[in-house]
Amino acid sequence: SKNYHIAVLAGDGIGPEVMREAIKVMNAVGQKHDFTVTYEECFVGGAAIDHCGTPLPEETINACDKAQAILFGSVGGPKWDHLPHSQRPEAGALLPLRKRYGLFCNLRPARIFPGLNALSPLRADISAQGFDAMVVRELTGGIYFGTPKGREGEGDNERAFDTEVYTRAEIERIARVAFKVAMGRKKKVTSIDKSNVLASSVLWREVVMMVAEDFPEVTLEHLYIDNATMQLIKNPAQFDVVLCSNMFGDILSDECAMITGSMGLLASASLASGSFGLYEPAGGSAPDIAGQGIANPIAQILSMALMLRHSFGEIEAAEDVEKAVARALKDQIVTADLARAMPDAHIVNTVQMGDAIVERL
Amino acid sequence: SKNYHIAVLAGDGIGPEVMREAIKVMNAVGQKHDFTVTYEECFVGGAAIDHCGTPLPEETINACDKAQAILFGSVGGPKWDHLPHSQRPEAGALLPLRKRYGLFCNLRPARIFPGLNALSPLRADISAQGFDAMVVRELTGGIYFGTPKGREGEGDNERAFDTEVYTRAEIERIARVAFKVAMGRKKKVTSIDKSNVLASSVLWREVVMMVAEDFPEVTLEHLYIDNATMQLIKNPAQFDVVLCSNMFGDILSDECAMITGSMGLLASASLASGSFGLYEPAGGSAPDIAGQGIANPIAQILSMALMLRHSFGEIEAAEDVEKAVARALKDQIVTADLARAMPDAHIVNTVQMGDAIVERL
Ligand SMILES: CC(C)[C@H](C(=O)O)[C@@H](O)C(=O)O
Ligand SMILES: CC(C)[C@H](C(=O)O)[C@@H](O)C(=O)O
Repeated sequence: SKNYHIAVLAGDGIGPEVMREAIKVMNAVGQKHDFTVTYEECFVGGAAIDHCGTPLPEETINACDKAQAILFGSVGGPKWDHLPHSQRPEAGALLPLRKRYGLFCNLRPARIFPGLNALSPLRADISAQGFDAMVVRELTGGIYFGTPKGREGEGDNERAFDTEVYTRAEIERIARVAFKVAMGRKKKVTSIDKSNVLASSVLWREVVMMVAEDFPEVTLEHLYIDNATMQLIKNPAQFDVVLCSNMFGDILSDECAMITGSMGLLASASLASGSFGLYEPAGGSAPDIAGQGIANPIAQILSMALMLRHSFGEIEAAEDVEKAVARALKDQIVTADLARAMPDAHIVNTVQMGDAIVERL
Repeated sequence: SKNYHIAVLAGDGIGPEVMREAIKVMNAVGQKHDFTVTYEECFVGGAAIDHCGTPLPEETINACDKAQAILFGSVGGPKWDHLPHSQRPEAGALLPLRKRYGLFCNLRPARIFPGLNALSPLRADISAQGFDAMVVRELTGGIYFGTPKGREGEGDNERAFDTEVYTRAEIERIARVAFKVAMGRKKKVTSIDKSNVLASSVLWREVVMMVAEDFPEVTLEHLYIDNATMQLIKNPAQFDVVLCSNMFGDILSDECAMITGSMGLLASASLASGSFGLYEPAGGSAPDIAGQGIANPIAQILSMALMLRHSFGEIEAAEDVEKAVARALKDQIVTADLARAMPDAHIVNTVQMGDAIVERL
């Protein structure tokens, strides 16, 4: 039987609680599909700062180097808010991991799940039209990593600067992913830019149009970022695949997640060009409910399913997990965060939710 | 009696129709408050491209140079979409005007008007909490105008870049406006940045915190841009003044406008450090309804009121206009775009709406 080896970085807040359930489900689905997953648990984020003085310790990096994938929980909390921004749990852990492993492609599915549109903060007549988008975000370029970046000068003339920069190759690589993903969905790509202002966006649009020629079945639309934030609220149903730069993708993927109203259900994958990837829930570490055993583990479980699919090619196992999750929801078994949408639901805790999903595998 | 002289740049689409009503109201309120406004009408945007080959002709610039303020309509439409982005009516007219006149401060009020929350695309229980925000956007710096900006290299290595750059003085100047505006409102400033990633944001936050010390009565909060797009949808009532860089303000002011659902009511002011300003509706040129005489002139009329207040110091006249608009709405006189929120309203056309406001001055 096959074995896969991963690094498990549960992190802070609800991270450890929901991670336990994801591993439980992973072991169960492995048994069914005849594979095992060994894993090394490492500190990351605030927990790593507390234990090792840095959000991404060397031991953690070493463990990740040896792994085929990283299953990531969530990091951060008020405890570490006094630190300089770049050394906080979030940026201090995620940005170096993305860079080190070349995780250029961030996939963030955002959808209103069947029967759950009452969770959406949008008006019922809008959310009822449905929303099922996949944000494809470039993750290792743009203004996040562009140089020069820094500060110079003194007094009133002191200035700070960042460089938004994209090469043709970087844009082409992420655009190809978006079009391929669209081929397996509703065959529509909406590319986001600000090409009336940014030179980088003009190149972005050019390259995306060029890549589109290789995918004649896919409809391509372009939206300026400012218009996109409006269209998402006004008519979310128009979107399928949303292709963005690092910065615009940061903004739009969070807006998309909030539009669903069910952050506790949203997974994400950050992929390298090979099979390596980092998988994490879209939501944060939710320090307000941490330790109470009531957090929704589904986003973490679905992130694990994305790992099975993208890093291990265990497509059937991934689908089994996704179906088991759908079944549990259909059986009205939900954690408290989803209760609003399901007045007759059976409210369970984190562990019971994990169990319910294992039972339905 | 006083006289003011302005440049009127009606532009494209519904621009000319709604501008006519704004001028009608301006003349009427001037009579009441004993001032006159002379004006020079100039081509701008697509109309200027058609007549003079460029979106901002020299004659238009000359007229603006001689004016105390610019009353701007709206520009753009599918007719000019074949042009390179930077030469289209919008960017080709607005960016040089902002730069030439040092319009560093963009004020975009966004609110859900009393009784109109059914227009908001947000869920009724959220929009009923109210939303009354003022976006204060830096308008002549940041990645819009930063250098270097351009393209270099060839083949796959071809790269395009833009520079996000802010000086301490630029940040301080816009921050002071935001705090002063907050003093006349609910005394809260939410400053937007991405200081976990951008060097420019780290300076931004530092300077904003320093300015805050001069306004001890004002509560200051900081939000990352990605979180801000979520909070606006989840709980818009928490916002008062939203302070942003040029790029983040572009994104958030449009999101705010869409959250109100009543783009036809939203004005904006782009101010220089003296009394000069450019005043324009927040919405676009709406080519789909142009020429039908059904567009809502209120955003243009309220933009004119902002001009009376900020460029001429005619505070009472400005308030009269704003009150007349409120009265017309209260009397259920509305254009078609607002009908959704007022099932018993009297639907009028553009000219009738202007007349209704003049009658209520
Ligand atoms: C923590 C931060 C650096 C990160 C980002 O901006 O990419 C986060 O917001 C995300 O979207 O994963
Ligand atoms: C037309 C464009 C350059 C402009 C901007 O991005 O500032 C517009 O979107 C706006 O917000 O006024």
